Amino acid sequence: MSGGYLKGRIRREDIISAAATLYGEAGYHGSSLREIAKRVGISHAGLLYYFPTKEALLAAVLVRRDAEDSEREQLNVPPGLEVLRHFVALAGHNVRHPGIVDLYSRLAAEAVAPDHPAHSYFERHYEQARESVVESFRVLSASGELREGADPEYAALTFIALMDGLQVQWLTAPDRVDLVGSLRFYLQNLLTVPLG
Amino acid sequence: MSGGYLKGRIRREDIISAAATLYGEAGYHGSSLREIAKRVGISHAGLLYYFPTKEALLAAVLVRRDAEDSEREQLNVPPGLEVLRHFVALAGHNVRHPGIVDLYSRLAAEAVAPDHPAHSYFERHYEQARESVVESFRVLSASGELREGADPEYAALTFIALMDGLQVQWLTAPDRVDLVGSLRFYLQNLLTVPLG
Repeated sequence: MSGGYLKGRIRREDIISAAATLYGEAGYHGSSLREIAKRVGISHAGLLYYFPTKEALLAAVLVRRDAEDSEREQLNVPPGLEVLRHFVALAGHNVRHPGIVDLYSRLAAEAVAPDHPAHSYFERHYEQARESVVESFRVLSASGELREGADPEYAALTFIALMDGLQVQWLTAPDRVDLVGSLRFYLQNLLTVPLG
Repeated sequence: MSGGYLKGRIRREDIISAAATLYGEAGYHGSSLREIAKRVGISHAGLLYYFPTKEALLAAVLVRRDAEDSEREQLNVPPGLEVLRHFVALAGHNVRHPGIVDLYSRLAAEAVAPDHPAHSYFERHYEQARESVVESFRVLSASGELREGADPEYAALTFIALMDGLQVQWLTAPDRVDLVGSLRFYLQNLLTVPLG
């Protein structure tokens, strides 16, 4: 790894950190690339070299968030009940961080358009989320811990969709929506053993 | 009802119709109040009298969409299995109308902010959706058609959330998400009788 490459990597990470902080303070729409550049101590043009658009930077913030989520909540443990418990813990973490959930929900809705800069991020994000959950449901199905006749593919797809849909409904009316309780309800109804 | 009042009502409905049509053609972000005014044959200022902002007009389009959905899919039949079947039929209708689903999803995500012009619309929308479904789950619970131990409140909340979350995932990757099949999977897993 050359010094120049390493320096570039560090600066890129610095920009992503500054962006994540500013999004939390001022919201995505209240954040400008100029302000982010200022905080990192580089020029606006310098920042554009790394992230040509606001959306590209936002996508990078989300990619890093996925990596951090996966690490913190140990989403990569061997497939099974434990993975589902970790996803529920992730939902609990999200409830304590509404700013990033808000950002994610808005961007997911905007990025359904194939020409949106974050579209391919969300395609991959959903694909990976489904894959990481479907394996767990397959394992549970094989061991009889998933209700008979419950298809692991549908279980995974609906679980991920439920997390997303609950977040928007919870952000709209936090007092009316028990996000973690709803996920537990859903999972428990699919399982023949206690979720724990 | 005075003639002036009636005239106002008709013009308001005309504006909403023109807006819904233009959103379908050009998307919400590609639509301007000026273009909508032009299509209705009134001045821009005249339109602002009825709808002071783009968002206010959008909210009116959505309110009318709810009323039309409810009428077309007979969501107001007596609570029970039939209501759930009608919601699944509504999802089928939505799959054939991705433009309005896209619009709805984006606005739902934007409108989580309490100061957003469509915020109170979505609060009411979710509240009404939950209420119309929870009654059905209560009836099914009383007749033993809902799985033992499944709480009707959670069932309603998760059903509405699932519809929303599936829509965004489906819009992102239409080939990977069977929206109607996923809803049926979810409901069938909650019921002790065939959904039909």
